[in-house]
Amino acid sequence: MKKETTSLKKLAQELNLSVSTISRALNDHPDISDSTKTKVQKLAAKLNYVPNIFAKGFRQHKTNIIGVIVPNITHYFTSTILKGILEEASLKGYRVIISESNNDAVKQTEMLKTMLQFNVDGILMSISKVTRQVDDILRIIDNVPLILFDKASNKIPCSQVVINEEESAYNAIEHLINIGKKRIAIIKENEYSYNSERRYAGYLRALKEHNIPIDEKIIISVDDISLRQGKRMTNLLLSIKNKPDAIFAITDSAAIGVIQTLKKFNIKIPEEIAIIGFSNSINSTIIEPMLTTIDQPGERMGATAVKYMIEEIENPNDIGNKTIELKGNLIIRDSTFKAS
Amino acid sequence: MKKETTSLKKLAQELNLSVSTISRALNDHPDISDSTKTKVQKLAAKLNYVPNIFAKGFRQHKTNIIGVIVPNITHYFTSTILKGILEEASLKGYRVIISESNNDAVKQTEMLKTMLQFNVDGILMSISKVTRQVDDILRIIDNVPLILFDKASNKIPCSQVVINEEESAYNAIEHLINIGKKRIAIIKENEYSYNSERRYAGYLRALKEHNIPIDEKIIISVDDISLRQGKRMTNLLLSIKNKPDAIFAITDSAAIGVIQTLKKFNIKIPEEIAIIGFSNSINSTIIEPMLTTIDQPGERMGATAVKYMIEEIENPNDIGNKTIELKGNLIIRDSTFKAS
Repeated sequence: MKKETTSLKKLAQELNLSVSTISRALNDHPDISDSTKTKVQKLAAKLNYVPNIFAKGFRQHKTNIIGVIVPNITHYFTSTILKGILEEASLKGYRVIISESNNDAVKQTEMLKTMLQFNVDGILMSISKVTRQVDDILRIIDNVPLILFDKASNKIPCSQVVINEEESAYNAIEHLINIGKKRIAIIKENEYSYNSERRYAGYLRALKEHNIPIDEKIIISVDDISLRQGKRMTNLLLSIKNKPDAIFAITDSAAIGVIQTLKKFNIKIPEEIAIIGFSNSINSTIIEPMLTTIDQPGERMGATAVKYMIEEIENPNDIGNKTIELKGNLIIRDSTFKAS
Repeated sequence: MKKETTSLKKLAQELNLSVSTISRALNDHPDISDSTKTKVQKLAAKLNYVPNIFAKGFRQHKTNIIGVIVPNITHYFTSTILKGILEEASLKGYRVIISESNNDAVKQTEMLKTMLQFNVDGILMSISKVTRQVDDILRIIDNVPLILFDKASNKIPCSQVVINEEESAYNAIEHLINIGKKRIAIIKENEYSYNSERRYAGYLRALKEHNIPIDEKIIISVDDISLRQGKRMTNLLLSIKNKPDAIFAITDSAAIGVIQTLKKFNIKIPEEIAIIGFSNSINSTIIEPMLTTIDQPGERMGATAVKYMIEEIENPNDIGNKTIELKGNLIIRDSTFKAS
């Protein structure tokens, strides 16, 4: 994915101008003064600047549209990311086309192709969790800048804007250990979910570092995590001999299902079983007891993805491969607060 | 807004063909058989068909993009409408550009203008609640089909897809009367909110038809309805001499604030005070007691708006001015269920 990077950036640094000024000077843009144009063109000649032809062609077809693909638009956290994307794009003069893949990899590929037909300047995507093959996606990023957000993938060489999922989960488990919990269950998704796998990694690391044995019997995987599955899996966990004293559900909705089921059986929260969710949805403060959870900065994630996208659009010689991690924050509430 | 409507429709009726077939036959579209083309062109000549030049110009610049403007993308009901819009548009080969007005009338006008610059084929809009002047909007609909959804306005002559807000509120109040409530308060928004005003009209009509006196002291208006305002206004209602025995909050979040406050004061729900919300959000089943509310068909609203929009795009001679009302459904739960 790395294209030649000498050119525009170097000229910009040498002359202490922005890359976009350099680019417009070289393209004889009317907004740039003649003296700047002369200065830039002289240095370009001196340093033997060679424009990237693909990039140039691309820029000339600039549509100022950013395409966005998300698995599910009604998911609250996703909608906060979209809010951030829309606001930042609007500030920077870009329009946004939003599509939904419905967590369907085939539909996702179709969406990507349609985005190209619409000549978008770049694509922001949160990938469908059933994306097992990334070949189609790899073909796309040969044509247009791609940045993944939230649901990312290590298999795709492009910039990614994510939450520090692993560390956030680690902090959650450590909090449970600190309040005296020793047998901590996890309700997670199957291995194809990026977020779930990273949260699971944090869970495993926290247990190992605190010398707590890992027990497969209380590691529960489901295909499609939801409130209903949270209920069902809690019933399962309550049926085993050596019950857990804490449950980490990797989404708030599943955690709410856990709470509702424990209440049905009159199990004391958090004394008998403590619960932690993930994402600080509105529901997490409506359920009783209120849910300890990890707050994710959705709007900031969206705005950050747009900023990096515009960088790549405006500097086509410098397509990125960075991972930007935003911090999740553990919000401690009644579902883990140790009654004194 | 009505353009000449003789032409395409009349030809279609005469020949028992669709308007789009007629249009394509007249434009020599390759999908239409030669025999059909001859038939259509003969009748067109006979009936002295004159194409609408603006409409034709418009069609030739077709971008297959529908612009959507919503007040707040993170609002759950809005996101379900967007889901319906995206799915229906995708099925019909249209892309969607989504913008958020943040309930800011100035931003809304900017959005409308940008949509035109992007040459969208049509605009679907849920209007910002602070839209007091509609002049800008009226200018826009001279240029492109506009359909309003959810937050509509009687001042704008275009098709509108809405919930039967007034009747739904009427049913909610009637249900409260049926369980024996006689002093029903309402927490609503100020007069610039379309949805709130229609729900309020339903409230007033139900009280009048059941000969229940209307008392201004228990009609509470707030600028920005929210859970926090639900709490504050409940405190206010509890401070008056003759307390209400039921509260209709015109959104679920406000109703949840009501429930939380009543619980704080150990007021029995629904025996002492019953509560009804509006929109059947996920929260309404998480709060205890679960909230009686009105379910709104969000996805269907979105899909319906797109269907009518495509009709208008494909039949530019026939810009509509219909109001399509979708039914809300009263969902009775514990916050009003009369303990027997």
